[in-house]
Amino acid sequence: MRIALAQLNYHTGHFDYNTNKIITAIQKAKAEKADLVIFAELAICGYPPRDFLEFDHFLELCEQSMESIARECVGIAAIVGGPSHNPRPEGKNLFNSAFYLKDGKIEHIYHKTLLPTYDVFDEYRYFEPAIEHSCIELNGCRIALTICEDIWDLLEDPLYTVNPMDQLISQAPDFMVNIAASPFAWKHDERRKDELRKNASKYQLPIFYVNHVGAQTELIFDGASTVMNARGSVYDVLDCFTEDLRIYDLEDVRKQSPIVRYSKPSKYELIHDGLVLGIRDYFQKLGFKKAILGLSGGIDSALVAVLATEALGNENVQAVMMPTEYTSGRSKSDAEKLADILDISYKIIPVQSPYQAFLAELNPYFGDMPFGIAEENMQARSRAIILMALANKFGYILLNTSNKSELAVGYGTLYGDMAGGLSVIGDIYKTEVFELCRYINRNDEKIPESILTRPPTAELRPDQKDSDSLPPYQVLDEILHEYIEMRLGPREIVANGYDEATVKRILKMVNQSEYKRAQFPPILRVSDKAFGMGRRMPIVAKYLG
Amino acid sequence: MRIALAQLNYHTGHFDYNTNKIITAIQKAKAEKADLVIFAELAICGYPPRDFLEFDHFLELCEQSMESIARECVGIAAIVGGPSHNPRPEGKNLFNSAFYLKDGKIEHIYHKTLLPTYDVFDEYRYFEPAIEHSCIELNGCRIALTICEDIWDLLEDPLYTVNPMDQLISQAPDFMVNIAASPFAWKHDERRKDELRKNASKYQLPIFYVNHVGAQTELIFDGASTVMNARGSVYDVLDCFTEDLRIYDLEDVRKQSPIVRYSKPSKYELIHDGLVLGIRDYFQKLGFKKAILGLSGGIDSALVAVLATEALGNENVQAVMMPTEYTSGRSKSDAEKLADILDISYKIIPVQSPYQAFLAELNPYFGDMPFGIAEENMQARSRAIILMALANKFGYILLNTSNKSELAVGYGTLYGDMAGGLSVIGDIYKTEVFELCRYINRNDEKIPESILTRPPTAELRPDQKDSDSLPPYQVLDEILHEYIEMRLGPREIVANGYDEATVKRILKMVNQSEYKRAQFPPILRVSDKAFGMGRRMPIVAKYLG
Repeated sequence: MRIALAQLNYHTGHFDYNTNKIITAIQKAKAEKADLVIFAELAICGYPPRDFLEFDHFLELCEQSMESIARECVGIAAIVGGPSHNPRPEGKNLFNSAFYLKDGKIEHIYHKTLLPTYDVFDEYRYFEPAIEHSCIELNGCRIALTICEDIWDLLEDPLYTVNPMDQLISQAPDFMVNIAASPFAWKHDERRKDELRKNASKYQLPIFYVNHVGAQTELIFDGASTVMNARGSVYDVLDCFTEDLRIYDLEDVRKQSPIVRYSKPSKYELIHDGLVLGIRDYFQKLGFKKAILGLSGGIDSALVAVLATEALGNENVQAVMMPTEYTSGRSKSDAEKLADILDISYKIIPVQSPYQAFLAELNPYFGDMPFGIAEENMQARSRAIILMALANKFGYILLNTSNKSELAVGYGTLYGDMAGGLSVIGDIYKTEVFELCRYINRNDEKIPESILTRPPTAELRPDQKDSDSLPPYQVLDEILHEYIEMRLGPREIVANGYDEATVKRILKMVNQSEYKRAQFPPILRVSDKAFGMGRRMPIVAKYLG
Repeated sequence: MRIALAQLNYHTGHFDYNTNKIITAIQKAKAEKADLVIFAELAICGYPPRDFLEFDHFLELCEQSMESIARECVGIAAIVGGPSHNPRPEGKNLFNSAFYLKDGKIEHIYHKTLLPTYDVFDEYRYFEPAIEHSCIELNGCRIALTICEDIWDLLEDPLYTVNPMDQLISQAPDFMVNIAASPFAWKHDERRKDELRKNASKYQLPIFYVNHVGAQTELIFDGASTVMNARGSVYDVLDCFTEDLRIYDLEDVRKQSPIVRYSKPSKYELIHDGLVLGIRDYFQKLGFKKAILGLSGGIDSALVAVLATEALGNENVQAVMMPTEYTSGRSKSDAEKLADILDISYKIIPVQSPYQAFLAELNPYFGDMPFGIAEENMQARSRAIILMALANKFGYILLNTSNKSELAVGYGTLYGDMAGGLSVIGDIYKTEVFELCRYINRNDEKIPESILTRPPTAELRPDQKDSDSLPPYQVLDEILHEYIEMRLGPREIVANGYDEATVKRILKMVNQSEYKRAQFPPILRVSDKAFGMGRRMPIVAKYLG
């Protein structure tokens, strides 16, 4: 039995595109004598389709696509993820299904049992869990087919009350297939391999695991589709962050040693590659080519400029430095030096005169009141007007350059530096920003050393430093990580060795800036807990606030 | 048996505040010789607590509050909603529970079975469904206690596969209690009454139904807590949109005729009252008193000014007219007239000079390119800078004035007129805006007739009218309603009598402006399908796009 794994980059709701891509892969697998070709979860429509699943018309297009794909499955069988109707009157109207296609038709439809409804996942919003489980029979082999989360509940404290593999195993399957939509986080592939290993070992079966690749707004899919033998050794891993199609002989997987030595990439290699794919797909799938961003002379915008250049090409990145009276000479020369190294177009457009025009109009009301947040924000917002005007005029998407530490404590201006179509590094703490820049500079100085070594500053008032209003980033980031990722409470964080007043102040800042993050662009997700769709907080609330 | 219904306005995560409120109500009910006092679903922490439920520290505070409330329950029993731990290893860690408090302690904890996970609801994100069901015994009475959605599934096509009341009824209860967190939509109270009626009739039992009142960011709770007799007649309804505590004798409910003739308020009365409460609570719960908004001379900002004045008092509303060269004399005089009638502070702050300053800085790049969207947006964004500067300086919250029709098709400027802390009328279509203004003007002309009768215009270029880029609002709103509320597809909408090219263009505009709505302020929800947390769409997608 020859089994093909098709790891493809789908576009949500783009049915012709997805269907053609799937059919091309089926033809290729067939030409290479595969008996079965496997595609990812909800491949037919892209993942996540979100509330488009509530539209009958959208579901009809899924169905039509599946039928046209089924017609191609002659002389080869395929497993393709898609939504299907629940024929029972009770329960939700849809299942999250794996369609088994054979002999030119839909042979059978298998449903997902465990529906992740946490973090970025909303599956029980749409789907009814499966209650029946049966194996596929193909060429004398029995296949235990599951969908993503179905094999993720081998815990001491399981999240669900049933386990579909425990039922399927009683039918004596020969191997396991799992089709997934498992988004990237830099720690996630290691856990994924562990989970596959636990399943292979528990059920003593080889596993063929197919994931999505490509980014869908904030969710990046890294692929890393995997073949594992029954001893839980990685037999092969498809290339990460890119499309791939590979074919395996089941007998080889059973008998031979692994054909790869799986080596874990470093944290910053993963994050770097994920962000580049995230930017590239956001632009390609929206039909844009060119990005614009403000360069401040600081490290955050420098990092985003590098990533944008790698994702889109230097000819498609427009950098703009927008000085006011508070912008230092060092910022201007550092920004220019970076643009030189990256060989990207660089404009200097001062915002001093519009800023002064605003001050003049507001003078009758502001009078002698001291310079404050209002004036700082006016500078940041004037910059956003310049960037958005250029974006509107020339067809750029504005890349946001806020980092996760700033976002967490609300150290940023709504409609100012918090503007943009996509937040590139909004899931990267400031201390990680430094590390990622060091990774980028590992061979040659893409980001000028002068940018990496200066103290962070917003330059919105004279001699401003981030450390005037915030604790050192090393401390801040650790406290934020304990609160945001670990969900620890104030008492536990203090017990871990931090100053109580600082902890309380930071947690309060986090909770009181929900209103800002609620209007922030989508953030490329690289951690286990990113701001955005996976972290849902009340705005009007008083907890720790 | 005397039963008290406590319909209160909680503040999410404000434990002292909620606990004191609950204890005060218990004392009052006890003083009036109630045997049982009933509070709403998750009253202990406010609804919705959202991802705060993932924090052990938050849950501890829930527990501590519940214990201190239990200590007050001597000589009276109480039912209070709150989260509780699931002691089993499998399944989610929490239940959405009703705590039965008696004799100074937690006597028993009952759990919710049907967990709404659609529209604005995310309950399966947090909670495990109940599997056991038993009645409360109090003073020789058996009480069938359910939580909100538990009694909402009496459908031919039920959303769930179990029905808790069908199990409870076998224990021969004397009456039903349902504690709810059922957010307002103008059609919803009618359905709620129907649902209660169906339950009363099916189980032949009186029902005591307690809902939240008050707004939590986008969700408005109208209260409308209800007592219904076993024949399904409304016995009494607590006041809507305000706190209320009433006590009933079970025997009276059983024997007497309804004490109220329930009369359904009009659509626009409900929407009006809901929005006023929504604004008021947003400010109060965030600790703000004063609002600012831009007046354009058009109907949308006029409507928001009226609602803000009613919610916050005329002394707390600051209106600003920000003319450019395209602002007509009529707009200026209409805005001024409105501010006069409402007796609110009114400033005129031109944005012509900052707008010109931006144009001058951009002139080297824009050159002779024709006037377009970029220039239009710069005006709208300059206005946002003025409004936000005043808000930052003087402690206002900026009220957004976009309507649902504009929002739907993306007819608005991100970081310009789409800015604000709260969207007041973002769930009101333009044709409804007119109707709501007519309702407001039913007795006297609060909104100048001249504003109601002029053709809508953004005034961002010479002689601009909304009808230049959009179909007539009557047609637009009908098509939008069929797509957004009814989830019809293009073919069905065309079949309902609309021009095919128009339908396709509008649906494409809706889908292509998701990126704008993703950065829009929270919207007070008054319909069954508001933009925001209840409508989750991919940004990068191609369906109908």
